[in-house]
Amino acid sequence: MCEASYIRNTALKAQGASLSLAQASWHTRREALLRISAALDEHREELFKANEADIACARENGRNEAFIDRLRVSEKVLTSMKNGLAEVASSKDPLGEVIYGATLKSGVKMIKKRVPLGVVAIIYEARPNVTVDAAALCIMSGNAAVLKGSREALNSNLVLGKVISQGLSQAGLDPHSVAVIEKTDRASTTELMRLNGIIDVLIPRGGKELIKSTVENATVPVIETGAGNCHIYVDASADIKMGTNIIVNAKLSRPSVCNAAETLLVHKDIAERFLPVAAEALINGGCTLKGDERARAICPEMAPACNEDWETEYLDTILAVRVVDNIDEAIEHINKYSTKHSEAIVTRDFDSAKKFEALINSAAVYVNASTRFTDGGEFGMGAEIGISTQKLHARGPMGLTELTTVKYILEGNGEVR
Amino acid sequence: MCEASYIRNTALKAQGASLSLAQASWHTRREALLRISAALDEHREELFKANEADIACARENGRNEAFIDRLRVSEKVLTSMKNGLAEVASSKDPLGEVIYGATLKSGVKMIKKRVPLGVVAIIYEARPNVTVDAAALCIMSGNAAVLKGSREALNSNLVLGKVISQGLSQAGLDPHSVAVIEKTDRASTTELMRLNGIIDVLIPRGGKELIKSTVENATVPVIETGAGNCHIYVDASADIKMGTNIIVNAKLSRPSVCNAAETLLVHKDIAERFLPVAAEALINGGCTLKGDERARAICPEMAPACNEDWETEYLDTILAVRVVDNIDEAIEHINKYSTKHSEAIVTRDFDSAKKFEALINSAAVYVNASTRFTDGGEFGMGAEIGISTQKLHARGPMGLTELTTVKYILEGNGEVR
Repeated sequence: MCEASYIRNTALKAQGASLSLAQASWHTRREALLRISAALDEHREELFKANEADIACARENGRNEAFIDRLRVSEKVLTSMKNGLAEVASSKDPLGEVIYGATLKSGVKMIKKRVPLGVVAIIYEARPNVTVDAAALCIMSGNAAVLKGSREALNSNLVLGKVISQGLSQAGLDPHSVAVIEKTDRASTTELMRLNGIIDVLIPRGGKELIKSTVENATVPVIETGAGNCHIYVDASADIKMGTNIIVNAKLSRPSVCNAAETLLVHKDIAERFLPVAAEALINGGCTLKGDERARAICPEMAPACNEDWETEYLDTILAVRVVDNIDEAIEHINKYSTKHSEAIVTRDFDSAKKFEALINSAAVYVNASTRFTDGGEFGMGAEIGISTQKLHARGPMGLTELTTVKYILEGNGEVR
Repeated sequence: MCEASYIRNTALKAQGASLSLAQASWHTRREALLRISAALDEHREELFKANEADIACARENGRNEAFIDRLRVSEKVLTSMKNGLAEVASSKDPLGEVIYGATLKSGVKMIKKRVPLGVVAIIYEARPNVTVDAAALCIMSGNAAVLKGSREALNSNLVLGKVISQGLSQAGLDPHSVAVIEKTDRASTTELMRLNGIIDVLIPRGGKELIKSTVENATVPVIETGAGNCHIYVDASADIKMGTNIIVNAKLSRPSVCNAAETLLVHKDIAERFLPVAAEALINGGCTLKGDERARAICPEMAPACNEDWETEYLDTILAVRVVDNIDEAIEHINKYSTKHSEAIVTRDFDSAKKFEALINSAAVYVNASTRFTDGGEFGMGAEIGISTQKLHARGPMGLTELTTVKYILEGNGEVR
């Protein structure tokens, strides 16, 4: 019960703080971010020391170097946190925008305007920079934030939580507006997922397992983010050089991110000309290829792909390859196996382009461009809190606007119905 | 397992149908609704007979007349179903609208456009007209629908399902686009709530228990609707006649609906002048009043109210009354007890009006007008599928637009990142 009341109390304090934060001006919210940036510098040694303790502990627990790398708050990571704060601080205000207005038949004047969601909870994994990035986006959109990072980053996150509270206080805002959860056990996490009436939205940021567990256990509204099993389909009429550039970029420019391609589908009529060229470029770039039977008949250097490969998000320099009979088979494959994130067609055929755009059931559908563009910054919405792969509330990159809801304000002169 | 596969298979067929429905033109979707309207006439005797069987069964089970009344498909209900179909059929197309467009820094051209959600599931209670209303809104917004009504209305709903399928077929659409679920046991309902990857959104329409059970058991995204514990706050500066008109209208014009008022809060400085006038009008209108100590000191005819009254949605001719010290106490009371639906202030003070608008955390906030206006038709959005009391995706009345999501379409000329 002690832990139960800690989580609930922390979230309730954030909810209380959310009321005044929602009324804070753009200038005040912006000032909070700039104060947090200054406080990061002020507490840098303390932060590095706490982070070293986290890293030492992770090493003891046998974590690999990739994990340690994500956990590390280096000078470079600190700079990127500060750049992130500055970027969000310079954003246009997402609040107060009047989206619609009308005089009702009764004479009542109505406006529909953007207001904060209230309390946004985020559950995330090792990277401590998410603590600062998420806090910045929540503050700037007028939302209180309840942040639960991983056990391994707890020392770092607690220092960051202190830094954030200091910045909030210095800007005249309630320091409870951003809460860093100190309890990282499973029971606390489950409790957080079920605080209906306190948490307005819960966003899991991390791997497949974290997202699955959140969707299954949460009773508060959830936005699914991040999983990206993205496809490139090379149509019969494709420009071979363009197709090669796109698949090499989509697979290899940054294999660990969610907008990287995981499967290449190739029309049978171009496969014999396209696959040898693309395979050579990919293999030269360090990529391992796993092909179906028809792809391997053309490029025997590919390992065999099985059904499991079609649904795997490798997040690595591995690419699954399949030859399809036609565009319909490609679309069917994608709608069956994709995580509804980003898919691309390479084609010179107008009808193929329009069919692909219409029938692919994903957040972002590309013609003749790399899936790597699916990103808040690239889409012109500034920093993002994640990329939604569901259809409710937000789809695709989620920026400040996606952290708002609407409210109807109606003014009358005694009208009744 | 038999039942399990029935629910899943039915939903999968709807998902399959959703792909072609999403591509259907406004004319085709509209034609389907008009064909359904004609098919209702064609099958009227069959429908009335099935409905009589449902009613006989409900009587046998000891259901009261109010229940039977909601269950009954009378000539008048049939007409209202047909009017509803005609109204939705004349709506502006919610699909295809381009909400935003830009050329990205890379040169890629981006548009963000409205597309259907996919498969919308609705769980509802006795009224069979919901079957037709919900089907109409889903078809017109390009969504497949999976409709689960109550056991008591099953015979009526099955006839309606047949009528809807006939209309869809006659318009050239897949008859599986709207599925009426034949199994109404708890296990089937739970299975429906957990069809992640098939159901894109689940909307419960009905009482508190249905909504609570859905929120607790569903793993697919849910939109909470309907619960309306609405408040009228009469400020110190209020016009007494206006305040009386508004509370009488908000409480008594239709006590059983979600936008009816359930609690009246009165500033202490006006209570002695306002309450006797308002109480008389309310009591003359057939209302029972339950007051706190201060209200009863002014109007001893009120029964005593307890804490439970503040959180009760009576949906009846009962009103809770409380005297507050100031507007802050009124706002605190409302934000604590309301279901975040609709609240009104009656005031002549500008600052009070603006404070109430800013700090009340509900979908619709009124100044000097009745809460009864919160309604899709009144708000100019046409027929509604419900009134969302949550903040995610949709807030307030949900019309056709709220049954859509967005999709980014990006066209390039070989751009990579």
